[in-house]
Amino acid sequence: MRNCNHRGHTIFFGNRPKIIASATVAGPKECAGIVGQYVDRPISDDMFGEDTFEKAECKMLSVAIDQAIRNAALERKQIDVLFSGDLLNQIISASFAARDFDIPFLGVYSACSTMSESILLAASMVNAGYAVRAVAATGSHFASAERQYRYPLEQGTTRPPQSQWTVTGAGGCVISSEGEGIAIVSGTMGKVVDFGVTDVNNMGAAMAPACADTLIRHFRDTDTQPEDYDLIVSGDLGALGSRILKDLTWEKGFDVSSNHVDCGEIIYKVIEDEFQGGSGAGCSAVVFNSYIMSKLISGQFRRVLFAATGALLSTVSSGQGESIPCISHAVELVR
Amino acid sequence: MRNCNHRGHTIFFGNRPKIIASATVAGPKECAGIVGQYVDRPISDDMFGEDTFEKAECKMLSVAIDQAIRNAALERKQIDVLFSGDLLNQIISASFAARDFDIPFLGVYSACSTMSESILLAASMVNAGYAVRAVAATGSHFASAERQYRYPLEQGTTRPPQSQWTVTGAGGCVISSEGEGIAIVSGTMGKVVDFGVTDVNNMGAAMAPACADTLIRHFRDTDTQPEDYDLIVSGDLGALGSRILKDLTWEKGFDVSSNHVDCGEIIYKVIEDEFQGGSGAGCSAVVFNSYIMSKLISGQFRRVLFAATGALLSTVSSGQGESIPCISHAVELVR
Repeated sequence: MRNCNHRGHTIFFGNRPKIIASATVAGPKECAGIVGQYVDRPISDDMFGEDTFEKAECKMLSVAIDQAIRNAALERKQIDVLFSGDLLNQIISASFAARDFDIPFLGVYSACSTMSESILLAASMVNAGYAVRAVAATGSHFASAERQYRYPLEQGTTRPPQSQWTVTGAGGCVISSEGEGIAIVSGTMGKVVDFGVTDVNNMGAAMAPACADTLIRHFRDTDTQPEDYDLIVSGDLGALGSRILKDLTWEKGFDVSSNHVDCGEIIYKVIEDEFQGGSGAGCSAVVFNSYIMSKLISGQFRRVLFAATGALLSTVSSGQGESIPCISHAVELVR
Repeated sequence: MRNCNHRGHTIFFGNRPKIIASATVAGPKECAGIVGQYVDRPISDDMFGEDTFEKAECKMLSVAIDQAIRNAALERKQIDVLFSGDLLNQIISASFAARDFDIPFLGVYSACSTMSESILLAASMVNAGYAVRAVAATGSHFASAERQYRYPLEQGTTRPPQSQWTVTGAGGCVISSEGEGIAIVSGTMGKVVDFGVTDVNNMGAAMAPACADTLIRHFRDTDTQPEDYDLIVSGDLGALGSRILKDLTWEKGFDVSSNHVDCGEIIYKVIEDEFQGGSGAGCSAVVFNSYIMSKLISGQFRRVLFAATGALLSTVSSGQGESIPCISHAVELVR
């Protein structure tokens, strides 16, 4: 006898696992913007007391996980599994952060879609009774991303207008089968979509088709329309990518123009400096776990579709002439 | 009301999802050894017709996934989700392989423990009814690993005696709620364990404590003893790491000395050349999906505990003086 809890590639979480707490850490540039008043641990020094950018990134992630557990009024030993990943080679931020916790760790990677992939998997485990409480978390750091993916900061390379700024920040949430919180109702798994974009400074254009693919499949699998959601949140398409997303979904008969926001587009206050806005796994992690979660808890939003977006390239793949495969995983949240 | 399908950090798959088919691709050095007669696609040229090692690695993984689906007599569209990851920065082999398939993709990373993490997650999804059929796959390539983690091959660096040889190969399996096959009965999630080893040429010693931790938790959570299994398979501890594993488990009252094998220790025929044996995500992927699966299907083994092992370091973490955090995820298989 088949036990079927999915339709198409959307999973339905009938036991309604809940996000019972979340937490964020963010740098000064990030805290100057829309998320500032919601961030648990604003940091003034982007080295966060460490001697390398990578260690600072890892520490932010560790602090976000720890704070999310504290915000849930839980102890670490009450968490059954941690899902986390990040942009650094071999996801060292997540692996080294996990070392700080005596909690089973399932490492994931979907670049800047890691926040929603982690939530989707954590909700899957909790809904199925494999875990009572799980943590989903990720983060990024501007300086570690620049030197790994682009140029040494000291070089002062000029940024093209279609580029985005990697967010310095981390966010995490506790997903539980017990307690009150924001229910995770469904999750739509992303497919790899590659429209042949090769410009590594134009991630928004590369990622928009993957996000559109996931959103459209979500609407079809769940028999919903964009207007059924108070907010449809993409990860870090930025301003240009968001316009492309609206066009691509509109072409398929789904108009998201009135209720779509992009975490990358809204995170920074002074948009001129960062061109298309924020990016990085920490972008959607910080916006979701601070601003979006606060608005869900307050009741300003009652139903949100969160689709973080990731570009699955590396410096090696780009150096070998490959285009940029992208992905977007989505989760539906209901107050 | 709580829906509980776990004890400690071991998940019980009550619906008995099954591995209905598997497939492997492996290079000439690998096929000269114990797995040779079981490999679906032995390759004589380790470039596999591609112009870079990384593209060859990706192609091997793609072929292994495709062959596993064919071996299950399925079409690609019948697969609901692919779990995969690999050792290359940003798991590009898995991401680019996933681009070849119109299947949802959940990227994972636990270094050389990726095969068992992928099986554990795929079994979780199938058991819970979130997917009817899932694929779990990973691979590695000696040459891409050498130039990413160690030295350019052209340099001809001398290898120390405690080093291992990264396997050129890939393996994957189809996990289904329908059909006949090898049942996945339980899975024990690994924790990050770091005993302070900093020698990147001595991965076996670094990983053995993580493997011991997972095995011991598995025995306790499932009320079993080592002798309840026909075979206890670790991933790529190599000869030295295997001896350490036996000591560490024996100290805690579990004697695995009579029925433990390590994929790294057994994969190569001429052990002298490769010092401690094989390593890499492809090591346990190839041995498990060819040799171990064949012996399970033939009935020579009836109950196997498979615990692939991963070292969660990067060149950056080692360069910054960090020790090597390790992990091992385990799955229990029953004919």
